[in-house]
Amino acid sequence: MKHLDQLETPVAVIDLDQMMTNIQRFQEYCDAHHIANRPHIKTHKSPEIAWLQLNAGAVGITCQKLGEAEVMIAAGIRDVFIPYNLVGDARLERLSALLPRATLSVTADSAAVIHGLAQAARRAGVPLTVLVEFESGGARCGVQTPAEAAELARLIAACDELRFGGLMTYPTSPQSTAFVRAVRDILTPAGIEFARVSGGSTRGMWQAHEYPEVTEHRAGMYVFGDRYTITNGAMTRETCSFSVITTVVSRPTADRGVIDGGSKTFSSDLLGLSGHGLVLEYPEAHFSGMSEEHGIIDFSACARRPVVGDRLTIIPNHCCPVVNLFDELVGHRAGVVDVVWPVAARGAIR
Amino acid sequence: MKHLDQLETPVAVIDLDQMMTNIQRFQEYCDAHHIANRPHIKTHKSPEIAWLQLNAGAVGITCQKLGEAEVMIAAGIRDVFIPYNLVGDARLERLSALLPRATLSVTADSAAVIHGLAQAARRAGVPLTVLVEFESGGARCGVQTPAEAAELARLIAACDELRFGGLMTYPTSPQSTAFVRAVRDILTPAGIEFARVSGGSTRGMWQAHEYPEVTEHRAGMYVFGDRYTITNGAMTRETCSFSVITTVVSRPTADRGVIDGGSKTFSSDLLGLSGHGLVLEYPEAHFSGMSEEHGIIDFSACARRPVVGDRLTIIPNHCCPVVNLFDELVGHRAGVVDVVWPVAARGAIR
Repeated sequence: MKHLDQLETPVAVIDLDQMMTNIQRFQEYCDAHHIANRPHIKTHKSPEIAWLQLNAGAVGITCQKLGEAEVMIAAGIRDVFIPYNLVGDARLERLSALLPRATLSVTADSAAVIHGLAQAARRAGVPLTVLVEFESGGARCGVQTPAEAAELARLIAACDELRFGGLMTYPTSPQSTAFVRAVRDILTPAGIEFARVSGGSTRGMWQAHEYPEVTEHRAGMYVFGDRYTITNGAMTRETCSFSVITTVVSRPTADRGVIDGGSKTFSSDLLGLSGHGLVLEYPEAHFSGMSEEHGIIDFSACARRPVVGDRLTIIPNHCCPVVNLFDELVGHRAGVVDVVWPVAARGAIR
Repeated sequence: MKHLDQLETPVAVIDLDQMMTNIQRFQEYCDAHHIANRPHIKTHKSPEIAWLQLNAGAVGITCQKLGEAEVMIAAGIRDVFIPYNLVGDARLERLSALLPRATLSVTADSAAVIHGLAQAARRAGVPLTVLVEFESGGARCGVQTPAEAAELARLIAACDELRFGGLMTYPTSPQSTAFVRAVRDILTPAGIEFARVSGGSTRGMWQAHEYPEVTEHRAGMYVFGDRYTITNGAMTRETCSFSVITTVVSRPTADRGVIDGGSKTFSSDLLGLSGHGLVLEYPEAHFSGMSEEHGIIDFSACARRPVVGDRLTIIPNHCCPVVNLFDELVGHRAGVVDVVWPVAARGAIR
C-alpha cells in the first residue's frame, strides 16, 4: 500500500470516492430530468473512467477527435459521438475503418463535410448518423441560421449512406431553444423528423434542464473539476477530485517559492483567470508565473511559508489539458494509492 | 517518397535544411566568440536532433529535467547539464542511477538541495559537479547575492562527493557580469577557483559575446524558431524551420475559419503576444482563439479566403510546448518527407 506522499512529483492524482460521487450526482440529475447523459472523455482520456460513466447510466460517450474514438472503441465502448467536422482523405479512411466496429455519430456544418462523410460511409458499407452543428453564441463552428441547418438536414436525409440524426451545439445557450424550434418548423412539414438535440458544457451542467429542446448533454470536466469550474460555480473546491502534487524546489526570496511544475505540467490555459492554480496547503498563495518546468508561487499573503522539499497540492485552472500532459493518473482513496490508469488517448493528436 | 500534402493533419514538420543552417550558424557564432555551446534539448526532445547539435560542435547538451536526461543518456549522449534543483528521495535515487553512465552536472541554489545532491553522489560512488544558480533578473530560482553564491560554493567545495563547477543563470542579463565578478572577488582569495559560467536564452543568443564572464550558452528554440523568436528579433520568418500543418474544417461565417488544431496542438502559451500563431498562406489572418481541438482564425483582413479542406501552415507562438504535445516530428526537404523522429523525451514529466 503506497501513500501519495511516497510518489515522485509532479504527479496527477484523483480522489476516487469524490470522482464516483461526481459521476453519480450528475447522472442522477440527468435521469431526474430525462436528459441523455453523454460524457465527454476529452477530460480524462481513460477508457477505465469512461466505463465508470457508462456503468453509472451514460447513454454513450463523446470524443472530440477520431484518435480518441479509436482508443475508446478498442476498449470495447460501442456508442461514440464525435461532434467534430471530420475532413480529409486520411481521416475519412480511418472513419470508414471504425464504422463497422461501433455505433458512431458525427456532425457537419457544411455540404463539403457531408460529402466526405457520405464517401466514408459508402466505403464502409455502414450507414452513418450525422447531426447538424449550429452556433448558439459559441463563435466556433456551426451553421448560423435555421434555414442553413434545414438545408444540410435535407442534404443528409437525401444521402443513402447517411442518417439525419438531429442537431448539435456547444455550449448550450438560451439561443438554442429558439433555433431548434425554428429548424423543426421548417423540417416537420417536409417530413423530416428528429428527436436528438445535443448540447454541452460543464459550466452549464446544472442548467441543462432549462432547455427542454436539448435532449442530450455533453459534459467533460464534471468528473474532476478545476479552478475554472469552481470559479464559475458549477463545482466547489470540495467536489474537485483532481489535483497535481508538486515539490518546492527553491525558496530564493522570503516571498517567492518555486515548484517542480510549470507550463509543461499545468498547461498555460487561463480561461479568464489570473494565476495558474489553487495551492491547497496555502490558500492565500498566488500561483503567479510559470516557465516550462518551474512554477512561481508568491507567498507574500501567507503567514506560514513552505521550505524546500515540502509538497504542494495544486488544483489547476483547467483539468483537460493538464491530463493531456501526463501519461498516467493515480487514483487514491484517502491518500492511499488504489490504481494507476494510463491516459490512453493522450497523444492521439488527430 | 511522400509529400507533406499527403500527411494527415495536424502534423508538426521541420524543414531539415533550415534546421541544419540554424544549428551551424549558431555554432559558428559560438566558435568565433569562444563560447561553449550547450544547446537545450527541451525544445525538440529528440536524441537525433541532439546528436546533430553535438556533431556540429556543441560541448554537451542541457536538459531541464531528469526524465529528459535519462532519454538522452540512453541514446548515447555523455555530457549532460541539468540546470535544475533536483529535490526529493525518488528523484535523487534516479540521479544516483544515472551518475555512473554519463558526465553530469547540475545546479543548486540552497544548502538543502546541496545536501540531497551529496547523498546521491555518495550512493553512486561518483563525484558530481554542481554549479550555483544565481538570479540575474529572471525572477525564478537562484541566490540573490554574491555572498550567498560564495557561501554555497564553499559548501559544495567542502563536500567530498561534490565538485564546485561554477555559476549558472537564466537568462543571461547585464546584471550577470557584475554578479560573477563579485563572486570571484570573494572566492579567489579563499582559494576556490571556477572557470565555467553558464548563461542562456534564444532571445539573447546573438548578444552572448557581450558578456565575457559568461563562458557557456544554453539556447533551445534556435533550432526551430517560432513567432516569439521572430517577434523579439532573434530569428526571422525565413529562418524558422518548424511549423504545424492544419486543415480548415469549418467556414461558418464569411470572416471566420476553423482549423483542426487548438490548445492541445498549439498550447496556450502567449509569451506576451496577441493571437496564437502566424498563418503562412494568409499573412493578414489573425489566429484569434482556440478551444482544445479547434483553432479560430479571423480572415477579415484577407482579400482571399480558404475553403473547407484547404491546408494552413502555422508558425506557433512557442515551439517548445507544441513539440511536447506531439509524439513525432516529420522532417522534410523541400516538402518531401525525409525522416520521422519520435519526440522521445515527451511524457518524461519528471
